[in-house]
Amino acid sequence: MDLNADLGEGFGRWTLTEDEALLACVTSANVACGFHAGDASVMRRVCGTAAERGVRIGAQVSYRDLAGFGRRSMDVPAAELTAEIAYQIGALRVFAEAAGSTVSYVKPHGALYNRVVRDDEQAAAVVAGVLLAGGRPAVLGLPGSRLLAHAEAAGLTAVEEAFADRAYTPQGTLVPRGEPGAVVHDADEVVRRSVGMALDGSVAGVDGSRIAVRARSLCVHGDTPGAAALALRVRAALEEAGVRVRAFA
Amino acid sequence: MDLNADLGEGFGRWTLTEDEALLACVTSANVACGFHAGDASVMRRVCGTAAERGVRIGAQVSYRDLAGFGRRSMDVPAAELTAEIAYQIGALRVFAEAAGSTVSYVKPHGALYNRVVRDDEQAAAVVAGVLLAGGRPAVLGLPGSRLLAHAEAAGLTAVEEAFADRAYTPQGTLVPRGEPGAVVHDADEVVRRSVGMALDGSVAGVDGSRIAVRARSLCVHGDTPGAAALALRVRAALEEAGVRVRAFA
Amino acid sequence: MDLNADLGEGFGRWTLTEDEALLACVTSANVACGFHAGDASVMRRVCGTAAERGVRIGAQVSYRDLAGFGRRSMDVPAAELTAEIAYQIGALRVFAEAAGSTVSYVKPHGALYNRVVRDDEQAAAVVAGVLLAGGRPAVLGLPGSRLLAHAEAAGLTAVEEAFADRAYTPQGTLVPRGEPGAVVHDADEVVRRSVGMALDGSVAGVDGSRIAVRARSLCVHGDTPGAAALALRVRAALEEAGVRVRAFA
Amino acid sequence: MDLNADLGEGFGRWTLTEDEALLACVTSANVACGFHAGDASVMRRVCGTAAERGVRIGAQVSYRDLAGFGRRSMDVPAAELTAEIAYQIGALRVFAEAAGSTVSYVKPHGALYNRVVRDDEQAAAVVAGVLLAGGRPAVLGLPGSRLLAHAEAAGLTAVEEAFADRAYTPQGTLVPRGEPGAVVHDADEVVRRSVGMALDGSVAGVDGSRIAVRARSLCVHGDTPGAAALALRVRAALEEAGVRVRAFA
Repeated sequence: MDLNADLGEGFGRWTLTEDEALLACVTSANVACGFHAGDASVMRRVCGTAAERGVRIGAQVSYRDLAGFGRRSMDVPAAELTAEIAYQIGALRVFAEAAGSTVSYVKPHGALYNRVVRDDEQAAAVVAGVLLAGGRPAVLGLPGSRLLAHAEAAGLTAVEEAFADRAYTPQGTLVPRGEPGAVVHDADEVVRRSVGMALDGSVAGVDGSRIAVRARSLCVHGDTPGAAALALRVRAALEEAGVRVRAFA
Repeated sequence: MDLNADLGEGFGRWTLTEDEALLACVTSANVACGFHAGDASVMRRVCGTAAERGVRIGAQVSYRDLAGFGRRSMDVPAAELTAEIAYQIGALRVFAEAAGSTVSYVKPHGALYNRVVRDDEQAAAVVAGVLLAGGRPAVLGLPGSRLLAHAEAAGLTAVEEAFADRAYTPQGTLVPRGEPGAVVHDADEVVRRSVGMALDGSVAGVDGSRIAVRARSLCVHGDTPGAAALALRVRAALEEAGVRVRAFA
Repeated sequence: MDLNADLGEGFGRWTLTEDEALLACVTSANVACGFHAGDASVMRRVCGTAAERGVRIGAQVSYRDLAGFGRRSMDVPAAELTAEIAYQIGALRVFAEAAGSTVSYVKPHGALYNRVVRDDEQAAAVVAGVLLAGGRPAVLGLPGSRLLAHAEAAGLTAVEEAFADRAYTPQGTLVPRGEPGAVVHDADEVVRRSVGMALDGSVAGVDGSRIAVRARSLCVHGDTPGAAALALRVRAALEEAGVRVRAFA
Repeated sequence: MDLNADLGEGFGRWTLTEDEALLACVTSANVACGFHAGDASVMRRVCGTAAERGVRIGAQVSYRDLAGFGRRSMDVPAAELTAEIAYQIGALRVFAEAAGSTVSYVKPHGALYNRVVRDDEQAAAVVAGVLLAGGRPAVLGLPGSRLLAHAEAAGLTAVEEAFADRAYTPQGTLVPRGEPGAVVHDADEVVRRSVGMALDGSVAGVDGSRIAVRARSLCVHGDTPGAAALALRVRAALEEAGVRVRAFA
C-alpha cells in the first residue's frame, strides 16, 4: 500500500502542512504547485526533502484560486484547464528534477478532485494537460471516477486511492466536506479504517453498510493539526498488520 | 544578427502584443511566463506558433507583479528570486517541448532587466535560477551587465543585446523609461539606428556622442501600437543592408 | 430610459474598455472594482470623469477571478460572497466620493450576473453584501431574476435592464455566451432592437417569437471593438425616437 | 499609552495572527486590508470583534504583494500608491462601519512602513491616499519619519509609535529585520523595555546607548507564536506600573 499526503501547502509567509514530518512517513508527496497553495520556494524545499528521503513526488494540481484554496468548483473551459494543468506540472518538474527526482504522478486537488469524479469534460481536460506536460506520469484519483477512466483510455497508469479519514456514502463516493460526519476526527477510528481498507478492501459507509474500496494508495490528510502524528500512527499500524507500505509501482 | 521581441504579454481577457505578426518576423521570441503577463493558454499558443515558424523560444522571466507589469523594482531575497526564475522556466518549457521546441534562452523583463545590470545579488540569483532549471539555456542581457558576467562565470552562453528604439546614455546604458526621450518613436529613426548598430556596432547617444554597442541580438519592442509593422521594417532594412538575420548561435 | 455600460475594465498595463468615449454617452457607468478587472488607478480615473460628466456610478461586482475575467461560475460560499461584495463596493465608494459622487447602484458582472438569475443562495448573498456595505444603493439585474427578488424583499430599488446586443431565449433569459447567435454583431440590428425595446417593451427572441422585455435601463457593451461608437448610435436613435435618455430614478 | 497590534493577517485557508486573543488586550487594531494579507471575510470578522470590544480600528495598508507578505520594498509610482492606499482604506471602512465603528487611523505595513521613514515621495503618496479616502483618519508611524511629517503638514493627527520587541539603532530607527538582534525574543526583556519606554520615554539601543523614544502608541507584534500571551503580559505590566492603557486621543 502506498501512503500519500497533500503537502507544500504554504504560501509566502503562511504555512499549513507539516512538510518535514509528513515526508518522514509517507511514500508519495502530493506537492502543491502554486495555484491553490505552494510558491516556488516551498516547492523547491519540499522537492529537495522528498528526493533525499526517497519519497515519490506528485503534482497536486488545482483550479487557479489562492483565495479559496482551490475548494470552490469553477467552470473553467476545457482548453484553459488543460493548459493550466500542464503549466503546474512543468513548474514542479523543475524542482523535482533539480533534486534528482521527477514528477511521477498527478493528483487533482480540492474542488477539481471532486469535480472530475463525474464531470467528463473537465476530467478529459485534466488528462489532456497531463499528456501535454509529457513524461507520462501516473494519475491518482477516486475509484470509478471519470478522471481515472480517461487516464486509462490514454494509456496512463491510473491509481485508485482511498481516504483514511473521510466518510464514504453507500455509493462509494466521499461524503462532501461541510456535511456532518464528512471527516473522521477520532484518531483510533482513522487507524482502524486504514488497516481495514488495506486488509479487506472495504470500509463502513456512513449508513453502516459495508463499502468495497479498491485502492493502491491511501491518502492521509496533511492540512489538519496533528496530521503528521496521525500519518505516523497509520503507517505503523499498517506495517504491524503486515501491510507493506511503499510507493505504488 | 538575431532579432528578438517580447511577446505573449496578454493575460486572460486582455491582449497586448501582436503575437502572430511578431512571430512572422523575429528570430527569437521572449515569451512571458505568467509573472508579469502571460497565462497558460497564451504561453501554449505562442509556443505552438513559434515552433511552427522556427522561431527560437526564450523565457521572459519577471518579478511576480501582474498589477505593475513587472515594471516596479522589488527587493526580492535572492533565494526566493532563484526559485521564482526556475518556476517560470519550468512552466514555459512544458509548452515549448510539447510544441517540439525547447527554452533556448532566458531574458529578464522590465524592472528585473534593469536591476540586474548593476545589482550583483539579484543578477547572481537569476543565474542561479537558470542553472537550477537545467538545460543550460543562454542568457540575454545588456552588454556589461552583472547578469551577463554571472552567466559567463557559470559557463552559460551570454548574449549581448541592443535596443532598436531605446535611447542610450553616454555610458552605454538605457535612458530609463519615464525620462524624456527614453523611447525613440520615429519609425525611420528606429530603422536607421538598427542598421547602424548592426553594421557599425555603434549608435548616437542622447548627448549626440557615439556609443559603442556590441550586440548579437537586437530587441524590437512588442507592446506598442504598430510594433509588428515596425519590426518588419527593421528586418527588411537589415536584410537590404546585407545583415543576415537569424537566431544567435 | 437609462443607458448603462461596463467600463473601467483595464488592469495595470492592460486596457479594454474605451472609458472616456463611453462616459460621453452613457448615463450609468458600471465600474469594475478589482475582482475581475479594474485597479485602484483605473477606478479613480473613471470615477473622476464620470462625476465630471454627471454619469451615475455603479459598482460592477464580480467573483474574484482576474485570470478568467469573472466569466467562470464559482461555488463561493454565501458568507464569503457577501463579504467580497461589500469589499468591492467599499473600495469603489472611496473614489466615487472623492470625486463628489457616490455609488448609486450595484450590478453583478459576468458569471455572477448569470448565476444570480436562478441561484437563490448566491442572489441572497449578493444582496446581503449590498446591505452590509450600507448606503442602500439600487440593484441592477435581469427581469425575473432571484437577485432582483431579493433586492426588492430587502427594500432596495430593483432596476430591470435589457441588453442591446444580446439574443433572448423564448423564456426571456439571455442566450448564453458561447452559444451561436448569443451576441448581435450587426450595428443596425442592435440599434433597431434598442429602440424597439424602449418603445414597445419587446424584442424578437432567437426563435422569432416576441419577447416582452420590461426594462428601466439598457445595457450597451463596453468591451468590444467599436463599443463606444455603437453606444453613441444607440443613444442618438433613442433620442430621435423620442425616448428620453437619463439615469433611472 | 495606546497598545496596537497587526492582526487579521490570515488569507483564505491560512491563518497567522491570534485575532481573538489580541483583540482582548490591545486598544488599537491594525487590520490588514487584502494587499499583503487579509481577505474580505477576515476583515469583516475582525472588525466585528473589535467593535464589540471597543478596540479602535485602523487600516494596515501595504504594497500589493501577497506572495511577499508586503515585506519587499517596491518602486511603486506615487499616483498608483495613492490610489492603492485609498482603495484599501475604503474596503476596510465598509466593515468597520457595518460593525458600528470607523477607520480611525492608518498605519503602513512592512516594507512600506520602513520605506516611508525616509522616502519622501512615497511618504507623500501615502498621505495623499489617506486624504483621498476622506474622513481624516490619524496616521501612525515612526517618530521622525517622513510619513508623520507629511501627515502633520496635511493637518492629520500624527501618532508616534514605539516597538515593544524591536531593537533600536543609536539613531532611533529600527534595526532591519534579517539583521542579528533585530527582534527581541526574550519575553521578560520585551516587558521590561515596554514599561521603560512608557515611563522614561527611552530604551537601550543595540549599542547599549540610551535612545529617546517618544511614543503615544506601543506596537506589540501579532504574527509570532505566543504573540497574544506576550501582549497580555505587556499590558498587565504597564497597568501595574501605573500607565493607563487606552486608545490615543
